[in-house]
Amino acid sequence: MPKLILVRHGQSEWNLANRFTGWWDVDLTDKGVEEAIAAGRLLAERGLLPTVAFTSLQTRAIKTLNLALEACERLWIPVTKDWRLNERHYGGLTGLDKQETRDKYGDEQVHIWRRSFDVPPPAMEEGSEFDLSDDPRYAGVPVPRAESLKLTIERVLPYWESAILPVLSSGETVLISAHGNSLRALVKHLSGISDEEITGLEIPTGQPIVYEFGDNLRPSGERYYLKDA
Amino acid sequence: MPKLILVRHGQSEWNLANRFTGWWDVDLTDKGVEEAIAAGRLLAERGLLPTVAFTSLQTRAIKTLNLALEACERLWIPVTKDWRLNERHYGGLTGLDKQETRDKYGDEQVHIWRRSFDVPPPAMEEGSEFDLSDDPRYAGVPVPRAESLKLTIERVLPYWESAILPVLSSGETVLISAHGNSLRALVKHLSGISDEEITGLEIPTGQPIVYEFGDNLRPSGERYYLKDA
Repeated sequence: MPKLILVRHGQSEWNLANRFTGWWDVDLTDKGVEEAIAAGRLLAERGLLPTVAFTSLQTRAIKTLNLALEACERLWIPVTKDWRLNERHYGGLTGLDKQETRDKYGDEQVHIWRRSFDVPPPAMEEGSEFDLSDDPRYAGVPVPRAESLKLTIERVLPYWESAILPVLSSGETVLISAHGNSLRALVKHLSGISDEEITGLEIPTGQPIVYEFGDNLRPSGERYYLKDA
Repeated sequence: MPKLILVRHGQSEWNLANRFTGWWDVDLTDKGVEEAIAAGRLLAERGLLPTVAFTSLQTRAIKTLNLALEACERLWIPVTKDWRLNERHYGGLTGLDKQETRDKYGDEQVHIWRRSFDVPPPAMEEGSEFDLSDDPRYAGVPVPRAESLKLTIERVLPYWESAILPVLSSGETVLISAHGNSLRALVKHLSGISDEEITGLEIPTGQPIVYEFGDNLRPSGERYYLKDA
């Protein structure tokens, strides 16, 4: 039976600094590296070995994947990288820490952005140092100016349907190494979580979340953390 | 214009121990890790940034690739892994060190195997601890019992023609991270080296070798080491 394993990348430099990261490409911290290795060791220990993997175009997710695959001796499986698994694009908030954001926009507005399902943050300013429109990594990609969680879901789900589900349906054990919000998009879809609830759902870093699938390619039960299995 | 970069994996544990490795999956040494990172830094320094990569199904080549891509900030490029870029299969010699091989088969025979173009080593024995026929990594792959350099070339070149050349022809800068003999196969083909000469050609570990291609998809000049460019 097909299985799906979701892993949020280990701690990044800007998780640690409490800055809005989004599409900006930051590295893992030493702790993040350890979390990724621990995730791979857990997969090996439980004998849940991925046969195919997907990740974003962002270093922190790719490194998490590579470290986890090395730890479970599966570096050789096919890996596909796609921008549609990238983190939510935080637009003009990119690079700001929590305090800077509050100072600039006020507590109430920040609360709305953080918890709203469909209100995008302010758009990335033209010429901002964090603007990635001209990055060769995103050649041909419609780089967003800012995304709500709703907009994030609107590019994650078509990729899920067109690229990941067909692979899963052939019986593979699929590992997705991605980001807090691209994984929220998948968990919302697979576990049927409401718009209101999903913005409050925390996906912990480096903790493999598992879905098992039945014949009809619907999850055969609730998601679970591999550590608790 | 398309460019091709060949990198032989950094020093492996069995390069160091002087054992025949072939398809056996051994890790890089610390020196091998450093060589891989240095290769990536050299690519970045010279501005020769790969846009697509290919590697084998073997950890030492995949890790070399991942470390080099990280060092030149190109972890996000597409990577394809294929068994046809694997090292030559050393059959029954796998796991033996130089002295053990001489003791078992005699100096003269060993010299013939090492330097011959088309004499394969003795076949892998059934049930050998080094037999990978049942490894899930090679499900569906015709795992050889032993390969001469000639046999190695006979599986590398069809892959070159069918998978790599079409990508190169679309103008990409292609990085191949592979092994002494799978790279010899490519260098023999691209530089027109004779059967007699190719067995003596050493491909150094971690040193990017570059071919530039003209309009006709033939190398436009001789290969060169990037460090000398």
